[in-house]
Amino acid sequence: MIKITLPDGAVREYEKGVSALGVAKSISEGLARKVLAASINGQVWDATRPIEEDASLKLLTWDDGDGKSTFWHSSAHLMAEAVETAFPGVKFWVGPAIDKGFYYDMDLGDRKLTEEDLVVLEKKMNELAKQSNPYIRKSISKADALQYFVEKSDEYKLDLLQNLEDGTITFYTQGGFTDLCRGPHIPNTGFIKAIKLTSIAGAYWKGDEKNKQLTRVYGVTFPNQKELDEYLLMLEEAKKRDHRKLGKELGIYTMSDDVGQGLPLWMPNGTIIIEELERLAKTTETAAGYKRVVTPHIAKENLYLTSGHLPYYADSMFPPMEMDGEKYYLRAMNCPHHHKIFDAEPKSYKDLPYRIAEYGTCYRYEQSGELFGLMRVRCLHMNDAHIYCNREQFFSEFKAVNDLYIKYFKIFGVEKYVMRLSLHNPEKLGKKYVNEPELWKETEDMVRKVLVETGTPFIEVQDEAAFYGPKIDVQIWSAIGREFTLATNQVDFAQPRSFKLSFTNKNNEPEIPLIIHRAPLGTHERFIGFLLEHYAGKFPTWLAPIQVKVLPISDKFLDYAKEVEMALLQQGIRVEIDDKKKKIGKKIRDTELMKIPYMLIVGEKEVNEKVVSVRRQGKGDTGSFAVTEWIAQIKQEIENRQSID
Amino acid sequence: MIKITLPDGAVREYEKGVSALGVAKSISEGLARKVLAASINGQVWDATRPIEEDASLKLLTWDDGDGKSTFWHSSAHLMAEAVETAFPGVKFWVGPAIDKGFYYDMDLGDRKLTEEDLVVLEKKMNELAKQSNPYIRKSISKADALQYFVEKSDEYKLDLLQNLEDGTITFYTQGGFTDLCRGPHIPNTGFIKAIKLTSIAGAYWKGDEKNKQLTRVYGVTFPNQKELDEYLLMLEEAKKRDHRKLGKELGIYTMSDDVGQGLPLWMPNGTIIIEELERLAKTTETAAGYKRVVTPHIAKENLYLTSGHLPYYADSMFPPMEMDGEKYYLRAMNCPHHHKIFDAEPKSYKDLPYRIAEYGTCYRYEQSGELFGLMRVRCLHMNDAHIYCNREQFFSEFKAVNDLYIKYFKIFGVEKYVMRLSLHNPEKLGKKYVNEPELWKETEDMVRKVLVETGTPFIEVQDEAAFYGPKIDVQIWSAIGREFTLATNQVDFAQPRSFKLSFTNKNNEPEIPLIIHRAPLGTHERFIGFLLEHYAGKFPTWLAPIQVKVLPISDKFLDYAKEVEMALLQQGIRVEIDDKKKKIGKKIRDTELMKIPYMLIVGEKEVNEKVVSVRRQGKGDTGSFAVTEWIAQIKQEIENRQSID
Repeated sequence: MIKITLPDGAVREYEKGVSALGVAKSISEGLARKVLAASINGQVWDATRPIEEDASLKLLTWDDGDGKSTFWHSSAHLMAEAVETAFPGVKFWVGPAIDKGFYYDMDLGDRKLTEEDLVVLEKKMNELAKQSNPYIRKSISKADALQYFVEKSDEYKLDLLQNLEDGTITFYTQGGFTDLCRGPHIPNTGFIKAIKLTSIAGAYWKGDEKNKQLTRVYGVTFPNQKELDEYLLMLEEAKKRDHRKLGKELGIYTMSDDVGQGLPLWMPNGTIIIEELERLAKTTETAAGYKRVVTPHIAKENLYLTSGHLPYYADSMFPPMEMDGEKYYLRAMNCPHHHKIFDAEPKSYKDLPYRIAEYGTCYRYEQSGELFGLMRVRCLHMNDAHIYCNREQFFSEFKAVNDLYIKYFKIFGVEKYVMRLSLHNPEKLGKKYVNEPELWKETEDMVRKVLVETGTPFIEVQDEAAFYGPKIDVQIWSAIGREFTLATNQVDFAQPRSFKLSFTNKNNEPEIPLIIHRAPLGTHERFIGFLLEHYAGKFPTWLAPIQVKVLPISDKFLDYAKEVEMALLQQGIRVEIDDKKKKIGKKIRDTELMKIPYMLIVGEKEVNEKVVSVRRQGKGDTGSFAVTEWIAQIKQEIENRQSID
Repeated sequence: MIKITLPDGAVREYEKGVSALGVAKSISEGLARKVLAASINGQVWDATRPIEEDASLKLLTWDDGDGKSTFWHSSAHLMAEAVETAFPGVKFWVGPAIDKGFYYDMDLGDRKLTEEDLVVLEKKMNELAKQSNPYIRKSISKADALQYFVEKSDEYKLDLLQNLEDGTITFYTQGGFTDLCRGPHIPNTGFIKAIKLTSIAGAYWKGDEKNKQLTRVYGVTFPNQKELDEYLLMLEEAKKRDHRKLGKELGIYTMSDDVGQGLPLWMPNGTIIIEELERLAKTTETAAGYKRVVTPHIAKENLYLTSGHLPYYADSMFPPMEMDGEKYYLRAMNCPHHHKIFDAEPKSYKDLPYRIAEYGTCYRYEQSGELFGLMRVRCLHMNDAHIYCNREQFFSEFKAVNDLYIKYFKIFGVEKYVMRLSLHNPEKLGKKYVNEPELWKETEDMVRKVLVETGTPFIEVQDEAAFYGPKIDVQIWSAIGREFTLATNQVDFAQPRSFKLSFTNKNNEPEIPLIIHRAPLGTHERFIGFLLEHYAGKFPTWLAPIQVKVLPISDKFLDYAKEVEMALLQQGIRVEIDDKKKKIGKKIRDTELMKIPYMLIVGEKEVNEKVVSVRRQGKGDTGSFAVTEWIAQIKQEIENRQSID
């Protein structure tokens, strides 16, 4: 008998050789039907693989990240089986699960895949899935494996085999398809109920453009049709909400070849959004006791040697400028400059917590192939701040930062979010992690306590902390359910040491502060990119570049329209008149297209009664109002940063 | 007889060989006593030099820049005469007039000058000045000049002679001193009534540190003792108001060797001033129809080749970063980025004037020896904007910019200012200046008209325009009478062409816009440096980093002090409490030292009567006020950006 420890700490005894699926069945048949794989002592295994020793076990289903990726990896094998049936002689390279779905790279000889081929392959995959063929794992000697692929003249798998050690090699077979694969896989193909092959692309073998170009087929699968339908709908909607498309249509940002790739230029409309976000940040941070600073975008090499960013982070930095025999770098992060501000005047415990904030611009090198609209850029305007505090202050400071996030999520209508708490590994202290066992324990406990006490949804990840302390990655979901990484919070014990920062504590002794790095609104680039999709360009009034458009029914009413415009302008409302020679219906359509929150229509009746007829974006008429009355309403809406109702 | 044309256009006839002094005497003896030199056909001459042909003539007095510099250059000769008397065998290099005064570089052999020597020299100079020795100009052949200095074994003057052409060489003699000099000089030494030798410095011959180090003596002279006294007082005051000293004391900015020279880091207090200035600029510019943009601090080489900044301006730019086979530069100016924004969407005449503003950060290379506090830096935050307009709009746009300056001068209590209008030279069209004779005439006329119509004090300078259009340099004087160059306004016909900018005019044809470059608040660095001196650190309330300090007379009144603080905070007033254990007198002194505009003193009486006792910085008690009443007052003062009364 072996002992199986379940996630809730319960220990059960089973026959040696029991599988995770067996364990699941012993608990409930319903549960067993959902099991895709299992985490055995922290490693993901086939649910059907025999367990020979005492182990901790976590069943993985569609709700687990590792469950999903096992599902998609198995789907890649299923696709390969369909391809091999349709195109005998095809050779495969690698076929991993990705963020959303899977792909497989293949050598089809001279054959070019078409969209029609994908339909045929989908059909075949559905057929094979229905057969509920089990994924069968088999250990194989390197010699036998080599022989197998030599016989198939498969140079790709032979290449992969070169780097594998004898005794660690496994084959997986489902139906008529066998692949060299480390696994794990789902129990059988029957789990795959809904299939969509999404695209065909070229991919150089091993990513090297000197090599042969292989065919990459992307796909995504689900355990039921409903989820696939929702996903396809989301993709369709995401296309309409593409931030690059909306960014151009709404005059948010532009790019220029002469300026350079990944360096957005913010147009007037985008700059309004930037300034509203910065106003929000400044107001919130001032109220929370932050002070603001402004620091240069460059510094000498030595600063980044002290911080440790050089040489370790050099690949992500712009190359140096050599001047007066010194190397200057564009900064990739703001922290070292802020530490210099902390250090500019002696500090005592009375000065702590010392919180300094800056919408600091950083420059990071990303390969040109990685650049993507506002999402992957080389110039970032970061909602940055650093909090220098002592250990007693840490809990309340960290909680205050967490509260900030939640406050922002409310304002922006972000309903789904998860904090991903990355912890250290005690075995790697002094190697991967700063050797401060007590501080690790203390701060990890406090961070966890904050998340638990505030009811913030979070997951814990072992052995993924930063070198210098635990970190939290913040994941948020847009209105259409797409996931974005917004920002990172970090606790830092290392930089205060390397920068020799200190304050005089109550005992009149020098003490090293802790630092919290935080950026709740992330970067303007990524956050405005997210907001464009999240709002589909229909910004709430407080953020909208143009908040109100006054539409005179004809030129006769232009004077009154101007009167209304002036009344709004004087109250700081962003308003324009559409005085073009066109019908009112066209004016309304054009304004809707520019996604402007309010239209004020003025004609005979409005002039006579000194009112405006109000249309809300996407909602139509909301009635007639006296101008001052309506101004009071919209001002309230703006001041409260009300979201779209 | 020859014809002399005076500045008012009057033409008078004189004997051939008349001097400017002769002309002056023919007008008024009083005037003649003030004449230091004269501008003859645009060249500065000795007032005593005979005029042989028809000429235009402007008499130069102490009120003219060229009058002053002639006076100071003559003073350098006077000093040299005194030095030669005191230290026979001394050899002289060059002795020019400078911004304020003059210097002379000299080789005194092994002799080291001391402060005491300066006193002796001043006395000697005063003696020689009283002799009213005339400065006598003499043309001399190169051969005779060479012989003269060979006999004196003067290798320095011989070196200067090498580069002079025979027929252009002149000697000047006053009293017993003769110098190789192109002149001009004042009529005689008697004009120099007040003398101060200010400092001694070392200076490498020809500025090359491989050469011998010469002794440089600085001095300043005036036509009367009163002006010297005022000047020395101003120097004394300027020392107290040194922006570097105040900048540190008030926590405005700091520098860090690890970040780099000339790269100020703005501390929390400095950042408050930056943000208030930016708020002023944004409010003013928004009301004036500007839109705001945000652009990256770098661009590819090609952008600066198009703008013409490369290669001509390369020495003032940071060296390039080489990346992906391209050169990227830190920008030294914002205009090219703004042109790209203008160009991002097609423009019609209806979109003009298109005004875009950005507090853009630029990086300029200055030699490390040139760096000076906030005044000469390598990182500049510029109050920049570009106005794209057509010719019909130019006058009103330029006037609006001029009005902006005047508005700002009022706000900051700048009472003395001069616009220095630099014009082109028609003979150099197509060489030094863009070949657009009509546009030059038109825009110069319009710029002049704006200055005349608005009664703005200005001077005109021939042949000093930018390559691409007329420019205005704005000179302002601080409260203690020191002159600062604040900013430059430029008209630009060249960049719109090189960037191929255009708009569709009313005839549906493409037309090239004019551009106005403007930066009324200059750069944060220079302007805040100026303000520190101008206000002696005593910022008006709206700009003061801390506006109010609440001083409880003892801990007993701390609760009430906090109540008062909270009431102020809620109204957005920057307030702190001094809750340290010290006497009220000490608290007041400390607050005065930090130059905080208001102190609210709270004790028994204030608590009972629910009032505050108010002390104004530098003025003492101003009375007791109910808290809400006083808040209304200070809010009014802040909102109006009232200057210190």
